[in-house]
Amino acid sequence: MATTGKQLFTTLEEDGTLTVAIEEVSFPDPTGKQVLVKMEAAPINPSDLAILVGGADLENAEYSEGKFVAKMPEQANKGSKARHGMKLPAGNEGAGTVIAAGDDEAAQALMGQRVSCVPGNAYSQYCIADAGMCLPLGDHSAEEGASAFVNPMTALGFVENAKMDGQEAILHTVGASNLGQMLTRICQEDGIGLVNIVRKSDQVDLLKDIGATHVVNSSDDDFMDQLTSAIDATGAFYGYDPVGGGKLVDTAFKAMERVAVSRMTEYSRYGSNQPKRMFIYGRLDTGATILTPGYGFGWTLSGWLLFPFLQSVGQDVMGRMRQRVRDNLTTTFASHYKERVNLEEMLTKDALMDYSAMKTGEKYLVTPWS
Amino acid sequence: MATTGKQLFTTLEEDGTLTVAIEEVSFPDPTGKQVLVKMEAAPINPSDLAILVGGADLENAEYSEGKFVAKMPEQANKGSKARHGMKLPAGNEGAGTVIAAGDDEAAQALMGQRVSCVPGNAYSQYCIADAGMCLPLGDHSAEEGASAFVNPMTALGFVENAKMDGQEAILHTVGASNLGQMLTRICQEDGIGLVNIVRKSDQVDLLKDIGATHVVNSSDDDFMDQLTSAIDATGAFYGYDPVGGGKLVDTAFKAMERVAVSRMTEYSRYGSNQPKRMFIYGRLDTGATILTPGYGFGWTLSGWLLFPFLQSVGQDVMGRMRQRVRDNLTTTFASHYKERVNLEEMLTKDALMDYSAMKTGEKYLVTPWS
Repeated sequence: MATTGKQLFTTLEEDGTLTVAIEEVSFPDPTGKQVLVKMEAAPINPSDLAILVGGADLENAEYSEGKFVAKMPEQANKGSKARHGMKLPAGNEGAGTVIAAGDDEAAQALMGQRVSCVPGNAYSQYCIADAGMCLPLGDHSAEEGASAFVNPMTALGFVENAKMDGQEAILHTVGASNLGQMLTRICQEDGIGLVNIVRKSDQVDLLKDIGATHVVNSSDDDFMDQLTSAIDATGAFYGYDPVGGGKLVDTAFKAMERVAVSRMTEYSRYGSNQPKRMFIYGRLDTGATILTPGYGFGWTLSGWLLFPFLQSVGQDVMGRMRQRVRDNLTTTFASHYKERVNLEEMLTKDALMDYSAMKTGEKYLVTPWS
Repeated sequence: MATTGKQLFTTLEEDGTLTVAIEEVSFPDPTGKQVLVKMEAAPINPSDLAILVGGADLENAEYSEGKFVAKMPEQANKGSKARHGMKLPAGNEGAGTVIAAGDDEAAQALMGQRVSCVPGNAYSQYCIADAGMCLPLGDHSAEEGASAFVNPMTALGFVENAKMDGQEAILHTVGASNLGQMLTRICQEDGIGLVNIVRKSDQVDLLKDIGATHVVNSSDDDFMDQLTSAIDATGAFYGYDPVGGGKLVDTAFKAMERVAVSRMTEYSRYGSNQPKRMFIYGRLDTGATILTPGYGFGWTLSGWLLFPFLQSVGQDVMGRMRQRVRDNLTTTFASHYKERVNLEEMLTKDALMDYSAMKTGEKYLVTPWS
């Protein structure tokens, strides 16, 4: 007997019409290493918003019960050509209870347990998930385990990646974000230097309260001097940025170069040879990334994504990272939510306008049975 | 008895006044591994222009015999803070005859020989050079050997670097340049695929004449399709760009991603996982580099400079590269010059306005004794 339930789908047509709607669908029986999870909670992360909203005009969209239809701006629509006409699920991660399992031992072992999972269609009442990617939550609630993958593994991934590259300090351009707070705690635990950039003075306080040493406020007049001093003090020539558009990466490279040049004994027309490295891991600002000259040729900028990184490090490192997340789920890796919405509430104008603004500390949690 | 002769110096004051002038100076006796070279020819490469001109207002400069005084625009002057008040030599490379040598065997062995050298003050009648960086020219003329280092070693360096990274094809954004032509010949010799971007149809012909297979013209309406096809045919997801400013790198990444996406069997909101890599090795356009979203997160952009690269590969690889340059100096690595000027002529308005435009195929050669 097939399990049926509600699931969210997002479809972008060639003419730029974006339709996001809840449908009643049936879920297949899990096979092999699959498990069927009755979903209880799923966060709305910035990485989910690209496929859910992706720059569409939410202000002038048509809203009805469990559905909205919006127009995508021409440029964004052109850039999304590859998904035209496809009906896609959404929601990277969530937590729920395993109610059916495939024959494989790993799947069977999870039967009846509450797990965190990464199904890719987490905005749904049920999901088919890979047992190998499930994290048994023990006595933790679904809410505590809903965000156990994307942010914790990304923050840990930054530190792992930095250590692999021989770095002892890193820079993060959005220090006060949920992920930034996790990163602050991880760096303290691991003795890694961290330069946090924030935009407001209350965010400085927030990070100082959880023990951050170097917090620089981009709204301050002496921001560039603060940033330069913090890089000098920590040696953070290696950083992560989820904004993408604009000049934040450029500013980081400039400050790094200032420090490097101040340490040079001889002038070079080519700038310093100090390697400077930045990673863009998100596109909170979908505008262009602007890189000005002024920091020589000793710099590298890359995109960074969690899944290719995890593939590159292999099962052992990933297993160690996941164990650490489970062991510290309500401390180092705790997430906080502003609102809880069910699938229909998630698609109302008020909710959409609010969570798509991606304000720091205002994350939404989808609870599909509430 | 000290050797005296003319040498060019460039000085930028804090107020943005750039003074470039010929002075009569005395050169010390070479010691250890040093040699004293009587310079016969030195090219004006784009990499020399930054320190020689660097965006100064040449149109409204004051010109006198062997000297000009120009204003640097405010932004460029701010970016050049580190050199304020310093009187700097110029000219990376050149060729001449060794007329005195230090005690070291390597230096003594060059006595009386014509060599290519990399003294950093090549716009001069004499230079002190490091014997280890000198390339004996045998029967070759100074003009044939004047450009034996920067362009040949850079073009070879691109191919070496690509091979080290497991690449079988590369992309070059200025195919018709002196360096681009060398790269075309090297790639043919080594069986490496090459995608050449040019701006004019006569440059397409020029490269086809020397045997290039994939030449795409950015002035053509179907440029993007041409570029995508050439990348698809060669697998060139790895490229070099000396322009820096503008959208050339962005365009290359976009075309690479188009090819990668066309090879995907399943849609991903994050773009392809095909690693795409570009290097900026010059700043012919000193405007900002613009990177738009639209090619996922599987990309890396770095600055690239010859000297740090050579340091990273070590003496053996460098020795092999230099031997190859010497063996093919008038074929694979031949350079051509539009004009020959002496030190005074080099600082006239006509000459400066012409060579600072860095037009393809219009390189100048400085002959300090003519």
